[in-house]
Amino acid sequence: MTAQADDVTRVPEADIASFIHRVLAAVGLRDADARVVGELMAEGDLNGADTHGVFRLPQYVKRIETGGINPAPDIRVEREQSAMALVNGDNGMGHLVAKFAADLAVEKARHSGVAWVGINHGNHSGPASIYAKIPMRHDMVGIYVATGNGNHLPPWGGTELLLGTNPIAIAVPALDEPDVVLDMATTVAAFGKVKTALQRGETMPEGWMIGRDGMPLTDPAKAGEGFLLPIGGPKGYGLSLMFALLGRTLNGCAVGRDIVDPDTGPDPDSTSNPGQFIVAVDIAAFGGAETFKRAVDKLIRDIKSSPTLPGFDEILLPGEQSHRKRLDREKNGIPIRATLMRALDKTADEVGVARLR
Amino acid sequence: MTAQADDVTRVPEADIASFIHRVLAAVGLRDADARVVGELMAEGDLNGADTHGVFRLPQYVKRIETGGINPAPDIRVEREQSAMALVNGDNGMGHLVAKFAADLAVEKARHSGVAWVGINHGNHSGPASIYAKIPMRHDMVGIYVATGNGNHLPPWGGTELLLGTNPIAIAVPALDEPDVVLDMATTVAAFGKVKTALQRGETMPEGWMIGRDGMPLTDPAKAGEGFLLPIGGPKGYGLSLMFALLGRTLNGCAVGRDIVDPDTGPDPDSTSNPGQFIVAVDIAAFGGAETFKRAVDKLIRDIKSSPTLPGFDEILLPGEQSHRKRLDREKNGIPIRATLMRALDKTADEVGVARLR
Repeated sequence: MTAQADDVTRVPEADIASFIHRVLAAVGLRDADARVVGELMAEGDLNGADTHGVFRLPQYVKRIETGGINPAPDIRVEREQSAMALVNGDNGMGHLVAKFAADLAVEKARHSGVAWVGINHGNHSGPASIYAKIPMRHDMVGIYVATGNGNHLPPWGGTELLLGTNPIAIAVPALDEPDVVLDMATTVAAFGKVKTALQRGETMPEGWMIGRDGMPLTDPAKAGEGFLLPIGGPKGYGLSLMFALLGRTLNGCAVGRDIVDPDTGPDPDSTSNPGQFIVAVDIAAFGGAETFKRAVDKLIRDIKSSPTLPGFDEILLPGEQSHRKRLDREKNGIPIRATLMRALDKTADEVGVARLR
Repeated sequence: MTAQADDVTRVPEADIASFIHRVLAAVGLRDADARVVGELMAEGDLNGADTHGVFRLPQYVKRIETGGINPAPDIRVEREQSAMALVNGDNGMGHLVAKFAADLAVEKARHSGVAWVGINHGNHSGPASIYAKIPMRHDMVGIYVATGNGNHLPPWGGTELLLGTNPIAIAVPALDEPDVVLDMATTVAAFGKVKTALQRGETMPEGWMIGRDGMPLTDPAKAGEGFLLPIGGPKGYGLSLMFALLGRTLNGCAVGRDIVDPDTGPDPDSTSNPGQFIVAVDIAAFGGAETFKRAVDKLIRDIKSSPTLPGFDEILLPGEQSHRKRLDREKNGIPIRATLMRALDKTADEVGVARLR
């Protein structure tokens, strides 16, 4: 653990995982569950998803304490066929529910070749890529779609917030090259990026948001007066809508006007019930996994060695930036800003466990 | 059949289907196969996909005559598990292969809840939405991804054409409202739109393409000197890449530099072997299909009744424009421009069957 410029402290992943573990155990999670959530949240930080890891811990603790999240859920299979299941997360921590679903998808895909597991009564579960990578570690392709707690996106041409940023992650294993892991919102900028720009006092580039007048909005302090823009205009809107239908409606969750955002809704203790789904595709069912991974390596190398446009130093694969952050953070620790560290200290003191440092 | 302004003739769908049927039977397709392809191609025209229906017939005929497409394929299941199959299209007409795969996915999803069918040795099969709608008619969600015959897209930040526009279609059934059917390329503009702008002597809007200098390219006559842009920049590139890995590599098809585009490659009779896959998700496995469709209707109505941005008259659902064209064309016939009609006449004369009119 070393102090750095800009009030950043580098903390080993294991310390963050065990800190989250003891905080969540202190507010009522079963010990094994608290450990798993700690590992998954710290993995988010390790991969560079700074707004989706330990950063969220104080908020989760508050939601658990107000009854908005069930600390001891009975996560169960509500409906099942050989290649699908519908999992009821019993309003537990989203990480536990998504991991349960991903593990089940892997098990089913091993027998059926492919499996699709939907989730209802889950919660925010951190970066989508974490769960897409679970099948990947079993030589499967993993596809994970999450729908947002709240609506931040109007339909294309509209002004009412009826849709979420609804991210998708797709994880494909490579052999010797880093795995290819796409993790993207269906909006040009995820809402977390707007919050980050606000914190840093930066202006947003045109194309992230528009105002109610349809004109570009670049001041993040005015984000509440405008809307995120979907990728490709009507196309990103279409993807977000389809992910809402598949991730929410199909799983029996509320959608559109019926969504209650626990962060802004009338009841801080209301449940949010965002839907998710995960698909596992067993590569061996289609042919040899090694042959596949060798072909993935070949495509990666063709892309990496192809010529660049003016203004670009290199071409990146999906997940490559995250992979580099991971290598750095495994070696040097995860950077925690002073403001976040103070918030974590406060949480530790309140629930009565040892601080992170 | 009535003559109209701008040299457009309106032709009933059934006449187009039977015209395609007799042309393809004359060049060696089995009669039943020629009939099915005629129906699927005419359905493309009915839905407004003007560059993906009968427009392509002369090109298909040429490819069949030069041996580039197998007129009498042995379409077969190469690998199979309960929820997946890999279909070898034996280089037959893509429409036959994609329909075979979609029908198989429906049959498997009925027993497994979900099914994923990959295709190799297929061919261009028209608009993606046609195949996504096959599961939809059985109260399933249909997802269909096609990879292009040729590469029209560099990786983000690059200049080498290593990827295709790789469209995805997702079809979700509604109850009383029109079904929701997304059909989109992973690029801002599909390549057909560039060709249409060229034919009409129009300038392209900024954002469709860039030149090798990275600057906007708006003259469609110079399309060969530049590149299509993916939706959301690196995000659309990521989607296109993942669809290439899932639609091509997983199914054992060539990808990236190894793709031979039969339209531009060295051998006009070479096979193209583009990959595709279709997923069918049985709604009944997750709960009642009618409950689901009622919730889809509710979301559609919430979206349609929500307020619009300045400059927008109404909010459209994915597939709504196509649905309107379909209603018009069912009633008034499919518009065929004089240039296309002449090309179809020429094809009819060459293969020795009665013309369309």
